[in-house]
Amino acid sequence: MKPENGENAENGEILTNGDSHIEGFGKNLLILKANDQIKELQTIIRDKTTTRSDFKFYADRLIRLVIEESLNQLPYSECSVVTPTGAIYDGLRYRSGNCGVSIVRSGEAMEQGLRECCRSIRIGKILIESDNETHEAKCIYARFPEDIAQRMVLLMYPIMSTGNTVVKAVEVLKDHGVAEDYIILSNLFCTPQAAHVVTQAFPNMKILTSEIHPHAPNHFGQRYFGTD
Amino acid sequence: MKPENGENAENGEILTNGDSHIEGFGKNLLILKANDQIKELQTIIRDKTTTRSDFKFYADRLIRLVIEESLNQLPYSECSVVTPTGAIYDGLRYRSGNCGVSIVRSGEAMEQGLRECCRSIRIGKILIESDNETHEAKCIYARFPEDIAQRMVLLMYPIMSTGNTVVKAVEVLKDHGVAEDYIILSNLFCTPQAAHVVTQAFPNMKILTSEIHPHAPNHFGQRYFGTD
Amino acid sequence: MKPENGENAENGEILTNGDSHIEGFGKNLLILKANDQIKELQTIIRDKTTTRSDFKFYADRLIRLVIEESLNQLPYSECSVVTPTGAIYDGLRYRSGNCGVSIVRSGEAMEQGLRECCRSIRIGKILIESDNETHEAKCIYARFPEDIAQRMVLLMYPIMSTGNTVVKAVEVLKDHGVAEDYIILSNLFCTPQAAHVVTQAFPNMKILTSEIHPHAPNHFGQRYFGTD
Amino acid sequence: MKPENGENAENGEILTNGDSHIEGFGKNLLILKANDQIKELQTIIRDKTTTRSDFKFYADRLIRLVIEESLNQLPYSECSVVTPTGAIYDGLRYRSGNCGVSIVRSGEAMEQGLRECCRSIRIGKILIESDNETHEAKCIYARFPEDIAQRMVLLMYPIMSTGNTVVKAVEVLKDHGVAEDYIILSNLFCTPQAAHVVTQAFPNMKILTSEIHPHAPNHFGQRYFGTD
Repeated sequence: MKPENGENAENGEILTNGDSHIEGFGKNLLILKANDQIKELQTIIRDKTTTRSDFKFYADRLIRLVIEESLNQLPYSECSVVTPTGAIYDGLRYRSGNCGVSIVRSGEAMEQGLRECCRSIRIGKILIESDNETHEAKCIYARFPEDIAQRMVLLMYPIMSTGNTVVKAVEVLKDHGVAEDYIILSNLFCTPQAAHVVTQAFPNMKILTSEIHPHAPNHFGQRYFGTD
Repeated sequence: MKPENGENAENGEILTNGDSHIEGFGKNLLILKANDQIKELQTIIRDKTTTRSDFKFYADRLIRLVIEESLNQLPYSECSVVTPTGAIYDGLRYRSGNCGVSIVRSGEAMEQGLRECCRSIRIGKILIESDNETHEAKCIYARFPEDIAQRMVLLMYPIMSTGNTVVKAVEVLKDHGVAEDYIILSNLFCTPQAAHVVTQAFPNMKILTSEIHPHAPNHFGQRYFGTD
Repeated sequence: MKPENGENAENGEILTNGDSHIEGFGKNLLILKANDQIKELQTIIRDKTTTRSDFKFYADRLIRLVIEESLNQLPYSECSVVTPTGAIYDGLRYRSGNCGVSIVRSGEAMEQGLRECCRSIRIGKILIESDNETHEAKCIYARFPEDIAQRMVLLMYPIMSTGNTVVKAVEVLKDHGVAEDYIILSNLFCTPQAAHVVTQAFPNMKILTSEIHPHAPNHFGQRYFGTD
Repeated sequence: MKPENGENAENGEILTNGDSHIEGFGKNLLILKANDQIKELQTIIRDKTTTRSDFKFYADRLIRLVIEESLNQLPYSECSVVTPTGAIYDGLRYRSGNCGVSIVRSGEAMEQGLRECCRSIRIGKILIESDNETHEAKCIYARFPEDIAQRMVLLMYPIMSTGNTVVKAVEVLKDHGVAEDYIILSNLFCTPQAAHVVTQAFPNMKILTSEIHPHAPNHFGQRYFGTD
């Protein structure tokens, strides 16, 4: 369609592989269906003339859509329920034992969206910074649910340019006993470089994003929160 | 998949035609992609043991997903915006001139979801009741934006059992000068009977729903609002 | 302070009587504490240059404040709870059995505010219109919780100019068995004329408002919903 | 009233001094009007049997009320606006140039409440931790609006037991050029000890709280976020 924009959808469905842009990223990198409404949200977020109020409103909409698709990756069980008229309805039920973890700071923009989908989900937090001298990513703060090793983890980070911060965050989660295939990364914008780094480091982690594009909107956190 | 549940999706994409379950409904009846997370929401709404608080929370989630897909049906224009780094981004922009109209009472449950996607959209309202003697559907109240004839209309009504209420509402909209193909009906649950009635009466109106099933959850309004 | 603006607060507390502006309205008409922040919200709502998006945002804030004060009028019981550290805390608990009723159309703007304070409160609805010939207020639609006669009712209507609509709505509630002193009217703006009409018709009904002023902002519903 | 519960209100108004419980705290420690509805919210938050879902819902309500009162402390200007009918309305307008700063982690629970009152307010963040060896409070992370020295700052921290964390956070703000009387601390629960420490360290900083009580609900962050 518009390969120069990094769109990866041919025909309105979620692509998991076979598209030239995501070739090599493996089967676990999923791109949100690039329909008109999502493209509109991405356009508003990219546009430098968007007001902060509008930026936050439309970013929140895109966040909710990515979160919904991320939740769709969680394991579920078949179940039967009884309706008010006494009929049996064959449905699905998510397995309990999930939690969210946001990477400070921009990942925190996704916490509210997660709460609007999962009312009382536990949400942990992790803060990664680069060492001034060695430039190595270091974890300087982490708060997780006590039993995180038994939970599926929705890791939230909206913008991936290099992938270094996410790589460190996932390492910390694994150090806390979380299995790689128990982590789902919810992301809005991702560069091809970051996609390569993260999928090669953690081939068993699912990744949801709305766009792979050489230039990520790195002003996201600054616009969303209004701070440096 | 589970034809007894009225699911119409084979492979995770939006079906517009060609599926045996919706054959005969025309190309304008669209069913939301029946993935696990949507199936979970439908299950919670069907389940008679769901608390009112949970019912409203999960109904709101399903409503937002249907509203997002409905907005995706609106006409858009290509546009180019400048990003904060000075790059050009080729995107999309929705054309202005839309509004919402909720059918009292259950349609009002969808107003908040529409506002969470379109911040200051105008929302009209229409009240249809059956005449006690003739059983004919009658419009007893309507408030629309003054210039509704020039607008695309998102008509909101979550449960369609017979389709009679919607048929009357669309007639009233047409009497106010709204073209049939300027109306998008946002619906959650629809019976095959209602789908036939409405698509035959208005073949040019787009219809979005999340499920076609012989038994619609008619307790929806009662559970959502807690009133008769 | 600024009597020409209908402010009735001298010193930052809720006035129930004794102030010259509300003399004659009885002890059941309560005016929200007229502090700076409420005055700011009233100013934004009055200002004709306010955008629709801002109008709704600030109206929602004022609505929540009036709703909170209205809930403060509900009956409560003393209770003791045990804290996580095992201490006893002497607190209060509201008695169950409340519901909301919005008067169509502007009263519906207050439904969301009520839900943000009382998660699963039942919300009924009543539609009053003037007869074209006799100009008499008539109820043309009502949906209440089945057991409304046993409930405290929070009646929602933001703008009172003549009071006629509210008088009719209260009569309908009383016809359904609701005692006058079981009704709390939540209102934003009220004229002195309407205050007289309503307090004289129903001296035992509690009324909460944020301002009594000769000119009510009658554009409220039009601005909030964007319709006639 | 119930001095054993740390209530400080005699008569439904905001107390700023003269009450025996807050004697010695100076004129800048303000306690929210202790009415029934606020007492109910405090009771639900204290109660160890409250579900996490209810805990968050009612905590959010109390947070909004404290935030509203905090905003009421901001400086304003008189202004005149023109109403849609052409009348002049003498009102108030807040001066621009405010921002929020939340203290990680529990203070982040108040960010959403602030956004629901001030749509696009900038929100900074500060992380204070105790040194494992010296037990000294240290700032290990801070993100502020670039021009914070020119802004009024709403500092958010819901539970104060010792006051040490807040003292360090205020010191960091002052190091960034924020004047002490430009800081308003929004707090839910405060011990007398913390009230003494903070008011003596910063006599010119305004402090809003809903309760002074010997035992603060230290489980707040754990319950709100579901993490340690």
